[in-house]
Amino acid sequence: MKALGPIPAGFTSIDGVLAMGGKPVTHWVEEAGGTPLFLYSADRVRERVAALRAAMPGRLSLHYAVKANPFAPLLSAMSGLVDGFDIASGGELEIVRGAGIALDKVSFAGPGKRDAELEAAIMAGVTLNLESEGEAARALAIAGQLGVTPRLAIRVNPDFDLKGSGMKMGGGAKPFGLDAERVPALVREVIASGAEWRGFHIFAGSQALSAEAIAETQGQTLDLAARLADESGAPLPHCNLGGGFGIPYFPGDEALDISLIGERLAERFENLPDALRETHFCIELGRYLVGESGVYIARIVDRKVSHGEVFLVTDGGLHHQLAASGNFGTVVRRNYPSAIATRFGAEVEEEASIVGCLCTPLDKLADKGGFPRAEVGDLVAVFCAGAYGASASPANFLGQGPARELLV
Amino acid sequence: MKALGPIPAGFTSIDGVLAMGGKPVTHWVEEAGGTPLFLYSADRVRERVAALRAAMPGRLSLHYAVKANPFAPLLSAMSGLVDGFDIASGGELEIVRGAGIALDKVSFAGPGKRDAELEAAIMAGVTLNLESEGEAARALAIAGQLGVTPRLAIRVNPDFDLKGSGMKMGGGAKPFGLDAERVPALVREVIASGAEWRGFHIFAGSQALSAEAIAETQGQTLDLAARLADESGAPLPHCNLGGGFGIPYFPGDEALDISLIGERLAERFENLPDALRETHFCIELGRYLVGESGVYIARIVDRKVSHGEVFLVTDGGLHHQLAASGNFGTVVRRNYPSAIATRFGAEVEEEASIVGCLCTPLDKLADKGGFPRAEVGDLVAVFCAGAYGASASPANFLGQGPARELLV
Repeated sequence: MKALGPIPAGFTSIDGVLAMGGKPVTHWVEEAGGTPLFLYSADRVRERVAALRAAMPGRLSLHYAVKANPFAPLLSAMSGLVDGFDIASGGELEIVRGAGIALDKVSFAGPGKRDAELEAAIMAGVTLNLESEGEAARALAIAGQLGVTPRLAIRVNPDFDLKGSGMKMGGGAKPFGLDAERVPALVREVIASGAEWRGFHIFAGSQALSAEAIAETQGQTLDLAARLADESGAPLPHCNLGGGFGIPYFPGDEALDISLIGERLAERFENLPDALRETHFCIELGRYLVGESGVYIARIVDRKVSHGEVFLVTDGGLHHQLAASGNFGTVVRRNYPSAIATRFGAEVEEEASIVGCLCTPLDKLADKGGFPRAEVGDLVAVFCAGAYGASASPANFLGQGPARELLV
Repeated sequence: MKALGPIPAGFTSIDGVLAMGGKPVTHWVEEAGGTPLFLYSADRVRERVAALRAAMPGRLSLHYAVKANPFAPLLSAMSGLVDGFDIASGGELEIVRGAGIALDKVSFAGPGKRDAELEAAIMAGVTLNLESEGEAARALAIAGQLGVTPRLAIRVNPDFDLKGSGMKMGGGAKPFGLDAERVPALVREVIASGAEWRGFHIFAGSQALSAEAIAETQGQTLDLAARLADESGAPLPHCNLGGGFGIPYFPGDEALDISLIGERLAERFENLPDALRETHFCIELGRYLVGESGVYIARIVDRKVSHGEVFLVTDGGLHHQLAASGNFGTVVRRNYPSAIATRFGAEVEEEASIVGCLCTPLDKLADKGGFPRAEVGDLVAVFCAGAYGASASPANFLGQGPARELLV
């Protein structure tokens, strides 16, 4: 039997069925019109934001990285909770616009911004995190043609990475941002152009579970921002310290100690160098805010035994949960947390693999986990499905189409 | 410098620009309305089918596995070329219906068929490849309610795998098909039910480049089919021998020797046991028919240097080419064949990485390859993009949306 990842704390059952928003998930499946279904809990997002606010210095603003989950009702709920939004494309700009989010709270990072995306962002008053001198020149030229003052920040490719992070975004040659030593010259050029100077965006990595590593990286980020601001000869209005706050997905993973991060950051904020004394700071989180709020529900359509192994074949699969299947950014496949939602909390009775309906051996949601005995018609739940699920999976693969989504 | 995969033979240029269908790709980009763009060559698909027909015994039918590329104009072109189509979902049933394909030439395999999919397939006269006794019972019950005679085949989980295949579909506990020893009982039950008995579907693996291994697997498949037909006590009307024909993607890969496969199969066909003497045989190919016919075209929107490394940032990426980015079913990332399409055939001048526009380090189309120097506005081409590209990638990730597609 292989271990399953840890089910996030706080999930309860009603009459043996996994519950969310005060109702069993069977209720939400009926309300949504069937499976497969992503359920996102607004309460859990609110609790997560509240816990973060309590742990972090009051001076620190909180941004939401839309790429983690762009579901419109979730974005609308989020708009009352966070101080800003970060987008990664013109498509996401239209998504946040559609969700009624004030566009002056939005910033846009992404290494391959097309001219049309730059134009739409400048017109909307979105802050552009410039990724290169070439992009800066294009943005200034477009703003000039439009007769609009662009709001420009610079994304810095830091000389360090976030230790233990799932994805390193700094610490070497990268397509993201400007190498630190070229930043001051571009700051001066941006300011001289008459653009609204917005500051730095410094993102060293994502999905780290070590509070020590995140605190150390935030310290390095502040040092780098101070040095670059000094060399630029201009006060730094804003600084996005990046994210990196991970959530536990796999066996042995432990939740991040955010109190340690908050304490260290508060100490740093009390001893800021002159160059940063008036700076507005934010962190930009996606996965950490919404990942554990989401559950992916699929229905068992077949129960099979092959060479003595049990397969629970569902109507869901990797076309909605690519990362859970082990096929996105991971080398060794490990099990996400999962359960039989209609027998939630029941004793483990057998070893079984939960697979999807796709005709490929890649389509595995749980490999040889321990579960109560499940039958055709039962629902399975894959947890940690609130981030990089629906929008980060090949929904149309094998003619399947997207999953249903519901904020409860 | 890292090696790039081999560019399929036969691609030429016009005035230094990669050509397809007798025109430079710049022409097709204009016609399609922009990039990113998948171009599929109808000529190359026709040539591939003709070469296969010439190499294989005349008795062998050729089926197309729709999952490899369900683009409707390609399916329509294919309908004059192959003898049957294999689908993997109710969604693909609607796609082939929409492409005007005769549904009595279609079979449906997939481990998690929902009741609604079984019903639609039975009504359409599609052959169902039954994946379990449970699915057989559901199919027979639905057909009874509909008053329609279902066309039923059985998918067999073989006791062997296809050596060297990219994905093993047999040789142990699998969610696909019935373990061989349970097949004869289900054959008798299907025949006794009054259903139209269609035979076996035996699929041992995919994406193999060893003709010896494929020939050996086909031999084992014929032996298994004969044994199961004997044990079933009924003649075998049809037998789908699976696929497994691979294409070269990576440095060092060599094209499959189909003449060897054809010769071996012809020998086997001349010495068939009694149980298979009247059987119709087919192979089911997807990737092999269309993979090398497709090219993915993206435009360079930024040229960056970071720590001395060159990054060509494009408007495409893993949201259209997940497998080429190394994030789908591969453990070690290797480079697909790629080129600067607007400087096709020019001398290598520098080492550069081609990356996508997504804000993640996973979004890499070519890692440290050798290319002629390219500038903003140049087009890049990623080859072997005809199969498992557009439909097998997370098109909506980061708000990007699908690529354009064109059959030329």
